[in-house]
Amino acid sequence: MDETAQEKKLLVAILLYDGMTALDAIGPYEVLQVPTLSTDVRFVSREKGIKQTDFGRLRLTADYTLAETPSPDILVIPGTAFPQAVMGDQLVLDWIAQVHRTTKWTTSVCTGALGLAAAGVLNGLKATTHWLAHDVLKQFGAIPTKARVVRDGKVLTAAGVSSGIDMALTLVAEEFGAEAAQLTQLLIEYDPQPPFDAGSPDKAPAGIVNTAREEFGKLVTMP
Amino acid sequence: MDETAQEKKLLVAILLYDGMTALDAIGPYEVLQVPTLSTDVRFVSREKGIKQTDFGRLRLTADYTLAETPSPDILVIPGTAFPQAVMGDQLVLDWIAQVHRTTKWTTSVCTGALGLAAAGVLNGLKATTHWLAHDVLKQFGAIPTKARVVRDGKVLTAAGVSSGIDMALTLVAEEFGAEAAQLTQLLIEYDPQPPFDAGSPDKAPAGIVNTAREEFGKLVTMP
Repeated sequence: MDETAQEKKLLVAILLYDGMTALDAIGPYEVLQVPTLSTDVRFVSREKGIKQTDFGRLRLTADYTLAETPSPDILVIPGTAFPQAVMGDQLVLDWIAQVHRTTKWTTSVCTGALGLAAAGVLNGLKATTHWLAHDVLKQFGAIPTKARVVRDGKVLTAAGVSSGIDMALTLVAEEFGAEAAQLTQLLIEYDPQPPFDAGSPDKAPAGIVNTAREEFGKLVTMP
Repeated sequence: MDETAQEKKLLVAILLYDGMTALDAIGPYEVLQVPTLSTDVRFVSREKGIKQTDFGRLRLTADYTLAETPSPDILVIPGTAFPQAVMGDQLVLDWIAQVHRTTKWTTSVCTGALGLAAAGVLNGLKATTHWLAHDVLKQFGAIPTKARVVRDGKVLTAAGVSSGIDMALTLVAEEFGAEAAQLTQLLIEYDPQPPFDAGSPDKAPAGIVNTAREEFGKLVTMP
């Protein structure tokens, strides 16, 4: 590939931080780094190195600092079971607000939307997040919207954890066209067939929804 | 939790190795480590430390060696764009064959099935893998089966990359019951809504399937 073509590659920055949920980051990563796409995907963090996931069993590596990544074309903020991990980090919030000014797309997965919200990015915008956290979005002036992927201008927000795959495919379709998105989907063989139809609070049995609220609802409420 | 309860936790070992595809490992991981499940999930590798993913942009950490993990209840072998990464590592193949004798479940995602096959685990069994790699399964005496998740006895194999989420939810349902699986699905908000219906070669447009074969078919053929 010649330099001209390389220059056109879209720089994708996926934020890593201690406490994040791995699949929130890895879903979009696996879609956006498919070799047939003209993208350059990097993991970024406060400082280079190893970041711990939410329940301590896995760490992921960031090769670039925030300071080294001042103008990504696509920003991806993954979520966490402990939203203060992002919402309480002013350096990260300032970076999000700063790079958002020049991104082509600003995106989030799960409670990553609360990071965007705390950075002031979602003010007055329709957005989604993990179903347990919709009320928090409202407190930051966003318009919580029940959908798997919500687009408002250049901001794409996705629902809980696994939804980042759908969000990233939507993004590929917007940016590179339907054929590129279909090829990507085929390469990662994303032909989902969950054994139950229980993946949203509107579909799961009421007792299951109540259990989820009781066990995890307090994690994603504001302190 | 008291010691009796802890003793009952199912030990899940997810293999990491240089060249693996991250989502193959992270999909099942995110399902199987949901805190409401009585599981103990660990990443294992030849040696402790950092393992590189297939296209060099991300590394994951393994906290346990194979030798430290002689009898997991559940074995998960993720896939890779470069199957020799597993199939050519005799130490890993010997470990797979050894632990398979006492697992409750032996599972794979994507071309991870070729690792199981090379270890002799799939001889005479129905199994699936990434759609581009079905022919290789046959060479190892497995019965390639077109399905997202294939169960044959205690062996669960999943199709390409993203299918590990479906496989792991199936496993949760088998092991912990339908309600536990539904709760898990709801917590990771797995209510998939891909923007296209192109996630398998039977569904994607023929031109897209041909492009995928041309660009990647040679990666997963036998050397």
